[in-house]
Amino acid sequence: MIDVVDLFRNDYIDKEVTISGWIKNHRKQKEFGFIDFNDGTSFTNLQIVYDNKLDDFLEIQKLHIGSAITVTGKITRSQGSGQTFEMILSKYTLEGDCPEDYPIQPKRHTREFLREQAYLRMRTNLFGATFRVRSVAAYAIHKYFQDNGYVYFHAPLITAADAEGAGEMFQVTTLDLDRVASSGKVDYSKDFFGKRASLTVSGQLQAETFALAYKKTYTFGPTFRAENSNTKTHASEFWMIEPEIAFCDLEQDMQIMEDMLKYVVKYVLDNCPNEMEFFDKFVEKGLIQKLNKLVTSKFTRIDHKEVIDILKKAPVKWEFEPVYGGDIAKEHEKYITEYFNGPVFIKNWPKDIKAFYMKQNKDGETVAAVDLEVPGAGELMGGSQREENYDLLVKRMHELGMKEEELEWYLNLRKYGGCVHSGFGMGFERLLIYLTGVDNIRDVIPYPRTPGNCDY
Amino acid sequence: MIDVVDLFRNDYIDKEVTISGWIKNHRKQKEFGFIDFNDGTSFTNLQIVYDNKLDDFLEIQKLHIGSAITVTGKITRSQGSGQTFEMILSKYTLEGDCPEDYPIQPKRHTREFLREQAYLRMRTNLFGATFRVRSVAAYAIHKYFQDNGYVYFHAPLITAADAEGAGEMFQVTTLDLDRVASSGKVDYSKDFFGKRASLTVSGQLQAETFALAYKKTYTFGPTFRAENSNTKTHASEFWMIEPEIAFCDLEQDMQIMEDMLKYVVKYVLDNCPNEMEFFDKFVEKGLIQKLNKLVTSKFTRIDHKEVIDILKKAPVKWEFEPVYGGDIAKEHEKYITEYFNGPVFIKNWPKDIKAFYMKQNKDGETVAAVDLEVPGAGELMGGSQREENYDLLVKRMHELGMKEEELEWYLNLRKYGGCVHSGFGMGFERLLIYLTGVDNIRDVIPYPRTPGNCDY
Repeated sequence: MIDVVDLFRNDYIDKEVTISGWIKNHRKQKEFGFIDFNDGTSFTNLQIVYDNKLDDFLEIQKLHIGSAITVTGKITRSQGSGQTFEMILSKYTLEGDCPEDYPIQPKRHTREFLREQAYLRMRTNLFGATFRVRSVAAYAIHKYFQDNGYVYFHAPLITAADAEGAGEMFQVTTLDLDRVASSGKVDYSKDFFGKRASLTVSGQLQAETFALAYKKTYTFGPTFRAENSNTKTHASEFWMIEPEIAFCDLEQDMQIMEDMLKYVVKYVLDNCPNEMEFFDKFVEKGLIQKLNKLVTSKFTRIDHKEVIDILKKAPVKWEFEPVYGGDIAKEHEKYITEYFNGPVFIKNWPKDIKAFYMKQNKDGETVAAVDLEVPGAGELMGGSQREENYDLLVKRMHELGMKEEELEWYLNLRKYGGCVHSGFGMGFERLLIYLTGVDNIRDVIPYPRTPGNCDY
Repeated sequence: MIDVVDLFRNDYIDKEVTISGWIKNHRKQKEFGFIDFNDGTSFTNLQIVYDNKLDDFLEIQKLHIGSAITVTGKITRSQGSGQTFEMILSKYTLEGDCPEDYPIQPKRHTREFLREQAYLRMRTNLFGATFRVRSVAAYAIHKYFQDNGYVYFHAPLITAADAEGAGEMFQVTTLDLDRVASSGKVDYSKDFFGKRASLTVSGQLQAETFALAYKKTYTFGPTFRAENSNTKTHASEFWMIEPEIAFCDLEQDMQIMEDMLKYVVKYVLDNCPNEMEFFDKFVEKGLIQKLNKLVTSKFTRIDHKEVIDILKKAPVKWEFEPVYGGDIAKEHEKYITEYFNGPVFIKNWPKDIKAFYMKQNKDGETVAAVDLEVPGAGELMGGSQREENYDLLVKRMHELGMKEEELEWYLNLRKYGGCVHSGFGMGFERLLIYLTGVDNIRDVIPYPRTPGNCDY
């Protein structure tokens, strides 16, 4: 048995095929009918034509939208517009019926409505395309790193360390909370791991242990934030890619970020042409042009300080005043990518607004950190060279009130053959929003987790 | 700058190269010395030769094992045995020193010792090879499914459903446990998701929603079990592959299981020849032969009932008596793969020892479930055709005391264009144990989580 997508890839004209799938739409005329048919392997439907010469014509006319059927028929050149071939139905079997009140009808549904039908929404064009692009983009990321000799590393998800202190963490426990309540005390010695444990917010520190063994490594796995934010860009559970490379400084790190992004974007454009055309037409006009431009553009590299210079000189009344020692607001990101007419790496950030592990520059004020800003999306990735100097790293941890005992193994990486090394992180859903134009994180994750929502 | 692995893939004879990496071993003679050098991109080390004609000969002789260095030298054909080429050192830079008490010395360390040095153990031959095979096998799995048109699906990790009831679950919470203790009550309305939430034990039920949209889907992600077992095969956090296919019955399901396994095994043999040779020599004698045999063998398919017939007739005194309505013990698995001299699919299991969602056979006693048993490892995968009949599924849930309201969406898949569909699950670490011969799950996961252990 073949898939619908095979029909579009090979020549089946004048051949009889048998294929199973679902009825997407059904237009009935008095003497004939058209079924839009798909098995989900193809963005484009197969058109099936039948007429009243068939014995079971009246039964076929009763077939409901959403039903699963197996059909046999000859593939012929299409007379109608909109498709180059169609199937002339000769026989069918009903595999599974679908009632008239099926929520997914061939009409426009709002994304809010479809979010409530999360287990069915991938049957629509919009979500069907979104989650296929998610799959293809994930594969492109693996392919890029594997083709370039990186070792894929599964970072631990449950962890006793809150090293980065990055936002709120979910606690993981096997303690019986009712018993905690009734006994009046929390006894972590009785908990599964014998201590307080949480869900990870990043695999970076562990990835560094792999970089210092394999030179090139990457993680691609879930991370968690218990942040009580209900915005378009926040989810409590999301997937991150965190590459880490030994003998690699910030300049080389940026080169890898640029190469990888261009590779993944190009791979998706090449492998999901119908989906991308759909997004371009119905979700974000100019999407394909935006992405093609990214692939061919040279990414600007500029210091944070120079960015502030430019922003201060800009003939713009800012909502947030640009500050040399401060962060860069959305309005600034937008201005700066327009100013350079393309993606911009902003590097060498004020150390006080960046993480403890970043390489301290000689000026004593900045660290070798970088954010990539892309037109139309703002920050897409962040990376840094890591502090490889044991003493400087410990000093910085003390300044920030961190306990070195808790990260002894991490510090030891600087003792046992440490070296210049760098890495970066990319939120997978942020990339997908950029790739598809679908601008709510709830719509690029199959079953999103947000405050108050962990259905399915 | 090139990687060590490039030297083994291309001809660099008589060329000068510069390369960064670590000192694995250092043998010093009075007038010359040998450094075993690697950057982690290659299983095989590069041999570096230097002699006392170099100005800094005495300094070089002091270089410690484990140190990071950058070396420049000419690649020449090797005089010695054991390698075809070596580098004649002309200059070096010390990137990062390593003290004499570095735990990873060029001698045999026990696996128990190395488990305590988990952040360094991938620098050894054994773990270096293990985690590279882990990476390559993970990619092979993605490649197999992507090449065959499957959509990769990220199942949710935090879930409010304990649908499968498969073992103990970890609870996920943002409640302040100290406050729970002091207040004497658990108020889930104040918890992050507004209800009790746990870490998933399987993505299968959600994967079915994708199969009924895309026909072919697979998950590859972490799953969690809070089982208090300290055995070689149990971990609390492990990675699972769960493919799910619409319009696919149990026979076709078995074909996919067989195809996928053979593909992945062959891919690893082809792409990790040095690592596999190492495992064959030092970990499991005959490993490569075992795997090659699997790739070329035909998998037997046999009913559970017939297996019990064979076991009952066998001239063996069983520790566990084979029973028609019961499970199959390790000793039985071993006997049956030896009996058929190859992998065996055992199918059509007694329904009372299998999950609620499995397709009920017409005999009223068995379900269309299958376990794959392989020589030397026992059960490697388990799958089933899923019950697509709404009424039968609800009836079975009632028999088992399950509430249908909690799985309304899952049941609805049978209402809205349901169809024959099947899937299977494979524990990724179980596969790795089979592929490498490394027989403890703690040694095939970078940072394993077990009772009392969530270090790093």
